[in-house]
Amino acid sequence: MEFGEVVRSRRSVRDYDSSREVSDEQLEELFELVKLSPSSYNLQPWEFIVVRDSGNKKQLQLCANNQKHVGDASAVVIILGNKNPLARAERVFSDREKKGHWDEARMIAATAKLAELGKDDVRSRIWTVKSTSLAAMTLMLAAKDMGLDTCPIESMDANRIRKEFSIPDNYEVILLITLGYKLKEPMPALMRYGYEEIVHFEKFGKKE
Amino acid sequence: MEFGEVVRSRRSVRDYDSSREVSDEQLEELFELVKLSPSSYNLQPWEFIVVRDSGNKKQLQLCANNQKHVGDASAVVIILGNKNPLARAERVFSDREKKGHWDEARMIAATAKLAELGKDDVRSRIWTVKSTSLAAMTLMLAAKDMGLDTCPIESMDANRIRKEFSIPDNYEVILLITLGYKLKEPMPALMRYGYEEIVHFEKFGKKE
Repeated sequence: MEFGEVVRSRRSVRDYDSSREVSDEQLEELFELVKLSPSSYNLQPWEFIVVRDSGNKKQLQLCANNQKHVGDASAVVIILGNKNPLARAERVFSDREKKGHWDEARMIAATAKLAELGKDDVRSRIWTVKSTSLAAMTLMLAAKDMGLDTCPIESMDANRIRKEFSIPDNYEVILLITLGYKLKEPMPALMRYGYEEIVHFEKFGKKE
Repeated sequence: MEFGEVVRSRRSVRDYDSSREVSDEQLEELFELVKLSPSSYNLQPWEFIVVRDSGNKKQLQLCANNQKHVGDASAVVIILGNKNPLARAERVFSDREKKGHWDEARMIAATAKLAELGKDDVRSRIWTVKSTSLAAMTLMLAAKDMGLDTCPIESMDANRIRKEFSIPDNYEVILLITLGYKLKEPMPALMRYGYEEIVHFEKFGKKE
């Protein structure tokens, strides 16, 4: 689909055809695009749990204020961000060095800086939420392009999800995203703040 | 451009043709897509400062570890997230009610919940980073679709930017995104963790 059409037609869908499935092949196609998202130092802190088993979806629904579409969607993706900035640094930085992006000094400096960041729980949480949310947007748009609909869900009991789905402590549970085929057209689209309301020029508050 | 081609061809570009400009018309086209991103309760906490003046870009470059591409790009967008979850609630929630998405009880409950959230600085920061980063991804992809290149920058002195660009305290400075025309092809693309490495099935750690 044309890019603009994907963005304009993406809607948060809450009514799913629970009889339809999302296949392994579709998931692979989806995540092959998701993985191309940019991230801080290319560290890709994102990981995803794809939940398709109906018992597990029901469990997840109960962790998300019993929102019915969590149980009805073909799949629900638990979006996780690793809070340890060095988790993937060795492989990512040696790739940077090998391809001539960085020299060794740059690699050492970045590693030291990220080790510092990793000691601060709030900063690490914000760090991982930032990069992982970029990937979450790619996921929602890529799904639309494949004929699938989504709904991002923030309202949930993250600790309960962590326990039920065996998620280690060093991961932030960022969002749930439902994935499936819509049963009917969603309700009328909600208003958006316009260009002139969200954009400032040169300094905050300057509108031209 | 086809959606998949946009995602596959987007790269972080650091060499810009500083003689080329990004017009008001291009910015409007860009942000008309950005504004369609989803957000928590549709509260759209994002705002953007577009910096095109060469003196201001130079200033911003100095706030971002003197990274040359900040000064060279046609424009740099300062990505801001409002930390006050209720800032846009009145208009957004009355739209929800008018369009039949919510009844009054739901609106009152959501307002109370967000007022609580707004009292916790860490939670509000994470809240705004989450939704605003979704919009930042749409921005980078939409720019690519329009023939523009971008680079997200996280490494910066946010407090200095806040001061130089008159940004109020209730906004989180989330990212800078350079915007412009590339001078040459970027360096070889960096490695990405593959599908099988980033996706778990049903429970964390289960790989099939």
